[in-house]
Amino acid sequence: MAEILKGAPVAAAINEKTSAKIAELAEKGIRPCLAVLRVGLNEADESYIRGIMKRAEALGVEAQVRALPEDAAEDEVLSLMEELNEDKNVHGVLMMRPLPKHIDEDKVRRALKPEKDMDGITDVALGGVFSGNNIGYAPCTAQSCIEILDHYGVDLKGKKVCVIGRSLVIGKPVSMMALGKNATVTICHSRTENLAETVKNADVVIAAVGKAGFVTADMLREGQKVIDVGINVNAKGKLCGDVDFAAAENIVSAVTPVPGGVGAVTTAVLMCHLVDAAGK
Amino acid sequence: MAEILKGAPVAAAINEKTSAKIAELAEKGIRPCLAVLRVGLNEADESYIRGIMKRAEALGVEAQVRALPEDAAEDEVLSLMEELNEDKNVHGVLMMRPLPKHIDEDKVRRALKPEKDMDGITDVALGGVFSGNNIGYAPCTAQSCIEILDHYGVDLKGKKVCVIGRSLVIGKPVSMMALGKNATVTICHSRTENLAETVKNADVVIAAVGKAGFVTADMLREGQKVIDVGINVNAKGKLCGDVDFAAAENIVSAVTPVPGGVGAVTTAVLMCHLVDAAGK
Repeated sequence: MAEILKGAPVAAAINEKTSAKIAELAEKGIRPCLAVLRVGLNEADESYIRGIMKRAEALGVEAQVRALPEDAAEDEVLSLMEELNEDKNVHGVLMMRPLPKHIDEDKVRRALKPEKDMDGITDVALGGVFSGNNIGYAPCTAQSCIEILDHYGVDLKGKKVCVIGRSLVIGKPVSMMALGKNATVTICHSRTENLAETVKNADVVIAAVGKAGFVTADMLREGQKVIDVGINVNAKGKLCGDVDFAAAENIVSAVTPVPGGVGAVTTAVLMCHLVDAAGK
Repeated sequence: MAEILKGAPVAAAINEKTSAKIAELAEKGIRPCLAVLRVGLNEADESYIRGIMKRAEALGVEAQVRALPEDAAEDEVLSLMEELNEDKNVHGVLMMRPLPKHIDEDKVRRALKPEKDMDGITDVALGGVFSGNNIGYAPCTAQSCIEILDHYGVDLKGKKVCVIGRSLVIGKPVSMMALGKNATVTICHSRTENLAETVKNADVVIAAVGKAGFVTADMLREGQKVIDVGINVNAKGKLCGDVDFAAAENIVSAVTPVPGGVGAVTTAVLMCHLVDAAGK
């Protein structure tokens, strides 16, 4: 049976370091403050935001939700972003996405000051992930995958990493981060031919497709480590990842669970970014 | 014997389109102007700059070399960059790299206005290549690889593309551009284990290592298309690519020559960027 790479111990280790930094900042009279910008009521965001508020409280940092109604005009969203940019008490901003369709998300995303961009949504931050120059902060979920591999001692150097999915939120950034760890990286996606063969060939599989049970037994082999980024609801209404977990745990050597895997680390990474930003 | 994917016809096709755009701009009284910024006398740059001046003359655009001595202070280089940024008659800037070691190249690179960045050296341009958002211009050499594949009708959709090299000048951007063409992309580098196996598995190989004869017969197979980005001088003092050309042409289905391959397209892509910038 595969080792289950739980997110909680990874998050705990990150939070411990973050706590120490928060204590240092407190001595300088700085209390990190995160603003969560949301437009409308997306149910999927609820639990993530709840988790953030809870973690913020536990760590003793401030987190404020700045909400606008679903029908808010683009200008209102941009004004709020501008306000958060200018507010010296706000060290970091997390914008819940997607924004309602009548709003140009690209425009709003680009309006955020890169130094307050906690989740790698600005061009500057993405350029930093691409170049490996560490300007700005990487998308939290992508970084969480790498944190899990680091925590469980999976050295990527020279290893074949197969990333399934090429989004700017996960697939592309996590590919660049794995490359930065000296992995040989293959990026697969919906147009990939012979997907099973390519995935099977990898030492580490990072699945970020957003489709329940997308990664099936025939794509997996003994000895692989599998990071499942997907958060989906299956036909039975149950939360599940992109990987057929029941099949995977009988084949591969290690796999992250859903829930309790990558998702359990994201908030810790977010707080780590916030505290870093507050210290600058 | 492999088809030889010569750069000249690709460049000619690009130049033809560029000429038409130059004529349109002329009607509006605009004459595109490129500034080539160089510090010191790097011999390798000489022939590239000569090619640019020649091409500029043939197309009827202006190109000026703005040279500083090898021992120029960082401030002088930054001042010149600022001057070029502000000069409304200059539409594009090409900075010859590397700069002398006493100058912080990153600082100078970032000082360039993204809209005048003809060769994808700014963070904004690199972020655009990464995100596929087409903000800014891609590095000319990376784009040249894609132009060659396009010109010779090599459709990358679903195909396995192996990029050897992960530099910001070629490896990473060309990987993202191939991904944008729906290829399944594998990025290899000096730390890759079982390189031969991985390269052999690909349908298209893009070699950007900078080592003469790095890609050998055992890495190649029938049916592959090979793009050789390397420009090296071998032990006999002869110009050659990263690929063992003599071996490759007996194995693969198509290969670019060196010289006369990718390098022959770069200037055409540069002029295409310049004319686009002048029209904005």
